[in-house]
Amino acid sequence: MQLQQLLGAAHVQDSTAGSAFLSDRHHVYHGQVAAVVHPASTEEVAALVRVCVHHRAPLVVQGGNTGLMGAATPDATGNSVLVLLDRMNRIRQIDTDNDTVTVEAGCILQNLQDAAREAGRLFPLSLGAQGSCTLGGNLGTNAGGSGVLRYGNTRELTLGLEVVTADGDIWNGLRGLRKDNSGYDLRDLFIGSEGTLGIITAATLKLFPLPKARSTALLAFDSLEQAVAFLSHARAGFGAELTAFELMSAACLALLRQQFPDGPQPFAQAPQAWFALLELSDNHSAEHARQSFEWVLGKAFELNLLADALIAESLAQSAALWQLRENMSEAQAREGRNMKHDISLPISRIAEFVRETDALLQAHFPGVRNLTFGHLGDGNLHYNVAAPLGQSVETHMAHYAALSALVHRNTQALGGSISAEHGIGQRKRELLAEVKSPVELELMRRIKQALDPRGLLNPGKVLP
Amino acid sequence: MQLQQLLGAAHVQDSTAGSAFLSDRHHVYHGQVAAVVHPASTEEVAALVRVCVHHRAPLVVQGGNTGLMGAATPDATGNSVLVLLDRMNRIRQIDTDNDTVTVEAGCILQNLQDAAREAGRLFPLSLGAQGSCTLGGNLGTNAGGSGVLRYGNTRELTLGLEVVTADGDIWNGLRGLRKDNSGYDLRDLFIGSEGTLGIITAATLKLFPLPKARSTALLAFDSLEQAVAFLSHARAGFGAELTAFELMSAACLALLRQQFPDGPQPFAQAPQAWFALLELSDNHSAEHARQSFEWVLGKAFELNLLADALIAESLAQSAALWQLRENMSEAQAREGRNMKHDISLPISRIAEFVRETDALLQAHFPGVRNLTFGHLGDGNLHYNVAAPLGQSVETHMAHYAALSALVHRNTQALGGSISAEHGIGQRKRELLAEVKSPVELELMRRIKQALDPRGLLNPGKVLP
Repeated sequence: MQLQQLLGAAHVQDSTAGSAFLSDRHHVYHGQVAAVVHPASTEEVAALVRVCVHHRAPLVVQGGNTGLMGAATPDATGNSVLVLLDRMNRIRQIDTDNDTVTVEAGCILQNLQDAAREAGRLFPLSLGAQGSCTLGGNLGTNAGGSGVLRYGNTRELTLGLEVVTADGDIWNGLRGLRKDNSGYDLRDLFIGSEGTLGIITAATLKLFPLPKARSTALLAFDSLEQAVAFLSHARAGFGAELTAFELMSAACLALLRQQFPDGPQPFAQAPQAWFALLELSDNHSAEHARQSFEWVLGKAFELNLLADALIAESLAQSAALWQLRENMSEAQAREGRNMKHDISLPISRIAEFVRETDALLQAHFPGVRNLTFGHLGDGNLHYNVAAPLGQSVETHMAHYAALSALVHRNTQALGGSISAEHGIGQRKRELLAEVKSPVELELMRRIKQALDPRGLLNPGKVLP
Repeated sequence: MQLQQLLGAAHVQDSTAGSAFLSDRHHVYHGQVAAVVHPASTEEVAALVRVCVHHRAPLVVQGGNTGLMGAATPDATGNSVLVLLDRMNRIRQIDTDNDTVTVEAGCILQNLQDAAREAGRLFPLSLGAQGSCTLGGNLGTNAGGSGVLRYGNTRELTLGLEVVTADGDIWNGLRGLRKDNSGYDLRDLFIGSEGTLGIITAATLKLFPLPKARSTALLAFDSLEQAVAFLSHARAGFGAELTAFELMSAACLALLRQQFPDGPQPFAQAPQAWFALLELSDNHSAEHARQSFEWVLGKAFELNLLADALIAESLAQSAALWQLRENMSEAQAREGRNMKHDISLPISRIAEFVRETDALLQAHFPGVRNLTFGHLGDGNLHYNVAAPLGQSVETHMAHYAALSALVHRNTQALGGSISAEHGIGQRKRELLAEVKSPVELELMRRIKQALDPRGLLNPGKVLP
């Protein structure tokens, strides 16, 4: 009732049975809420938090509901207020001389990309869910995607934030500054905290010049070691022009051919085990990009850092190559559920990790099929494991916990992370307790206690 | 006595009268300490902190003592233990496939640059004090310098940290990962906290390919507006090849000619008001860099974004142009003390800021001379103000507080920061209370309380 007075009756839903907000997109996590609210401004969010503090009601913020860790799904108590920022989706300002944009958290990523392009600038965050995910979600999870190699994660793209604190105060930290050393870095603490430390309502983000030309190639490698050595060569030769380096195993390409028989079929007969989609962004011209390609790839062939290469000769061919990468999740989904592991490793340990972990899985779970792909340039593997041929998905998935424990143990042993870009949410909360030291967990708990002493912000997420 | 048992008598100095450690390099701040200690390992630092906790003795860490804000100078109580990490200066590991280096906090920046270069890599942090400042100090202050435009501040160069907490525990966060979303971002909280939240003992940092060629030019502009418009053009044309854009006013160039009569004298008769040192780093070749220059500068002349340009034709000419920039602090020091303001602004507001603030200063302090230079590409001005001709430095400096208040008020009004790259220390501590909102100050205080509940880490610094 108080919420309706605050936000207007039209913007508060009390009856939410069957609502899509209550489950994650893969229908793994389900919750209940006391109300779903749609505040229209930062001031309304602040007032809302104060009402919730008064009633000791937890707040869960949800963006495009595209996350994979259950971070935006409320718990089962039904006490929470679910906050949707869909009415706070304005682009407040684009400053082309400063190369910044200030945008509200409810803005859909693709809308921001489009607005930047219209202003003659690039907003480089790019990921599969960009048509429905929101900037608030990207900030809450420090989203990665396929442009990280050149432009960094969401954190590196962010200069300033506006946050409503757990007390219902507004912190205006919307600074468009590239250098600012005036006190503790609150910004980066809120980014990636998955709604557990504050509610991000707006951000000031970096923009970049639009590249003049983009070139794409699909590369074939005899081994993962060769792909890693090529990457090092390509970083030196292309420098910051190298904007994507997306790894796909031969098994992934085969699955794509099978699930998308009408899609592109490059390297269908190739004997190589590994492939990578390489993208170059050039400030000069298409001709210049082609010269760079010839120069770096030619040298790579000479040095035996590359087995084969397919260079897109047109925008259509480039789009076809990217389509492979973009169809990857769907191809896997069509085949049936598999075990997903979003992990990162030092790039120098990746070949070793894959070799050892693949072998260990075969020893313990004979016949499982690795469908490994990911952002090799960032050390980020989507180390997915499908059922052995002929085994039912249900039988396979029954081993999820045991198999994942093995994958995560090896990740940890080689200095990697159990979550590269998907976050922790509720899914990896208990796992966090296993992989983090007591010192790190204690530091995190103290920060949570300091910024959300009542524990009302997204309870049950992130911290074990 | 307990400290001598812990670290060995040779590594504990009780008698420190007259020691250089007790004052900052400009002899503005002075303190006293109970002891100066030189621990040899992270474990020794942890044990040291536990002893200090037991005795409630504050700890002040000092690197190369090159800071300008008094952050590394102990207070006058004489209770503190001054921690020098000069024995912890090892480069623990260089991983060229992962493009990372793990280094101890006591390592001098230039030694790290050299080690990276020997491994065929670039560590891009570059600043005037690099021959004596340490990585620990760079991390503690989130140091900037002249490579930020392309490579970011120290924070953006850091992947992982090792920190001794205020409880004397060791947090091993030395991860060499480019994507890692597993819990709160402790790393960036410790970076830039100036030794008030923990003691950074080591870091894993990013390395980059060594550029194949570097090109330098000194550019002349009719106005600051023109320089800002050129910068935008250059960012689009050069992309990430643009690695420095260092602004100097005509008054700065005149002062250099006067104080370094045997030094380079470019544009001695030029009528322009503003100049910028531009550096291009190229992954291909010197010839390629020259072509880029011609292409972008040619277009800039056509568009009237540039009044004149002097392109270095040799390494010697390039070094001479950089010498101008590097002599700037010394030229000012030779003329006598002036009022320094290390500020940052949105790049789009810089011309307006300089015009308005210059005028306001003339109205209130007639005859003062602006010696404005800085990292325009980062929005970072060193907005320095010298005495009117004929006025003594002492008379001039007597107005420091009043004049600075005006400069900082204008900075604040245009969305800028009162400290771009020098930090807060003790110098700007009280100023912080004026420019930050109560909400931001409260968040910072809670974090300090959470991570250093006894207030033993570098007391009296940063927080008002």
